[in-house]
Amino acid sequence: MFRPQIKVLDCTVRDGGLINKWQFSDEFVRKVFIALSQAGVDYMEIGYKSSEKYFSRDENGDWKFCTEEDIKRIIGDFDRNNMKLSAMVDIGRIDAEDIHPKKDSVLDMIRVACYAKEIDKGINLAHQCIDKGYETTINLMAVSKVLERDLDEALDDLSKSSVSIVYLVDSFGAMYSEQIHFLLKKYFAALPGKELGIHAHNNQQLAFANTIEAIIVGANRIDATLYGMGRGAGNCPLELLLSFLKNPKFDIRPIIQIIQELFIPLKTDVEWGYHIPYMITGTLNEHPRNAMKIMASKNMPDLKVFYEELVDGTPLD
Amino acid sequence: MFRPQIKVLDCTVRDGGLINKWQFSDEFVRKVFIALSQAGVDYMEIGYKSSEKYFSRDENGDWKFCTEEDIKRIIGDFDRNNMKLSAMVDIGRIDAEDIHPKKDSVLDMIRVACYAKEIDKGINLAHQCIDKGYETTINLMAVSKVLERDLDEALDDLSKSSVSIVYLVDSFGAMYSEQIHFLLKKYFAALPGKELGIHAHNNQQLAFANTIEAIIVGANRIDATLYGMGRGAGNCPLELLLSFLKNPKFDIRPIIQIIQELFIPLKTDVEWGYHIPYMITGTLNEHPRNAMKIMASKNMPDLKVFYEELVDGTPLD
Repeated sequence: MFRPQIKVLDCTVRDGGLINKWQFSDEFVRKVFIALSQAGVDYMEIGYKSSEKYFSRDENGDWKFCTEEDIKRIIGDFDRNNMKLSAMVDIGRIDAEDIHPKKDSVLDMIRVACYAKEIDKGINLAHQCIDKGYETTINLMAVSKVLERDLDEALDDLSKSSVSIVYLVDSFGAMYSEQIHFLLKKYFAALPGKELGIHAHNNQQLAFANTIEAIIVGANRIDATLYGMGRGAGNCPLELLLSFLKNPKFDIRPIIQIIQELFIPLKTDVEWGYHIPYMITGTLNEHPRNAMKIMASKNMPDLKVFYEELVDGTPLD
Repeated sequence: MFRPQIKVLDCTVRDGGLINKWQFSDEFVRKVFIALSQAGVDYMEIGYKSSEKYFSRDENGDWKFCTEEDIKRIIGDFDRNNMKLSAMVDIGRIDAEDIHPKKDSVLDMIRVACYAKEIDKGINLAHQCIDKGYETTINLMAVSKVLERDLDEALDDLSKSSVSIVYLVDSFGAMYSEQIHFLLKKYFAALPGKELGIHAHNNQQLAFANTIEAIIVGANRIDATLYGMGRGAGNCPLELLLSFLKNPKFDIRPIIQIIQELFIPLKTDVEWGYHIPYMITGTLNEHPRNAMKIMASKNMPDLKVFYEELVDGTPLD
């Protein structure tokens, strides 16, 4: 039995691009687009929308910007099979004038990523997107570090907003199923009438399991990526998610095919997935930035020392 | 808060040896032994006990046999830190006379692996081990394929036996948390007074998550391996499990250290972990043997065809 309300969003190019600065060829992105639409995925998140005055095209690939021209060049006249297109925006990295009215855009949805402490800015940007005609979400990041009182305040602000879809985001891959359960129950109680989603990271090999837990609790907006590609330890693998969901509209075969054609080879060049440095930051509920530095360096330092330094921190008194 | 009844068993050498025919150097096994004891792990399963008339020493390393001499050569006079030693036995691959009385052995526990259909033989062998003085378990394998009526009968037989510890084993890595929950509840109901354990495989990146679920339901005997090393997709990673358990007696630092020294290098030679062929057999609840063949071959076949063939099977009428 399946739950028809569940909508799957693939964010391979957006979250995976965080590893390689969105340096994907047009052919690569087009093949991903075609495979996802054939598989019956509900949304493809094709990148970030960012303003070029904040970021350089020399350093970043097209999917850091997602202009209308970039996207149209990829999707051409291919059959979308009802798949919608999404882009993510970050507070302070996009100007309102760079978001065109929906009627002039091939995008269907804009997802606003923000931290609890900047929830007012996030809601403000989301309201602009809603006014321009987009389906709009707020993805509240890194909540595993947010004090409950501050989280409650952010949720209270969200409850009064026009934003109808809110994601629980485990940015550090630090949560166990019990935290997912607790937080989603809190979100549901605080946000009556809104849809909830989940975006998980795989530092503790729990991205898929936590996604299942969120589905059990009632989340209907589900993020995944091909072969789990994503920043650091990566995300919930789309191939596992589609196998779990019983909706007959999903076809896993194009997903297996594109993973074999593009992602297994890519993983020998671009590193993501479970590694001990990511596991250490995940279990300690820390930002993965130090683990990413280790993984990017040629010489791996002593990981026991890395662990001890993170545990010890600097004594404050 | 921790549950002091939880006992962690590391079966790296036993289950990992299924990949490389137990071709580990003495130094390797000794370093594993020392790291596990320093980390506070409760049991080290050092291999299989098998009779040499069934298997050749030319093809298989020492840990397929686990003679007293083999084990004593490794553990020497090192401080065990109260860690107990275990070996696994398979029905029909060991003769009773090869299991010495406990008083003449350095082993503390013998685990009997058997299928539901051979439960009578399994209980018979387990009773011999109990009579010889060993702590003894039965690990009921591959239950994701067993019809409920047959499973109930096997559990009924077990309930009347003297075996006090029974493991739920997800041999195919096919279970979701809901199956773990359902089956463990069934085991608890059918086996009053017995301790239950969990042994999970990682085909769907759920070995650790399913282990957590089993702990939540009440399992106290928990299997894991260093860096998840084990047959096919591997097992629940010990480093994740110890980070999750809050018992202050566990020290994860020697585990991080030995993974960096031995297991990260080993994984470049000996392949285990999440791969699409294992994912396919796991999601389809099939034995991983065909996936293992694919992974062992140099040329990966078309994985979409591999999936389609497993799904289609051979129509029977």
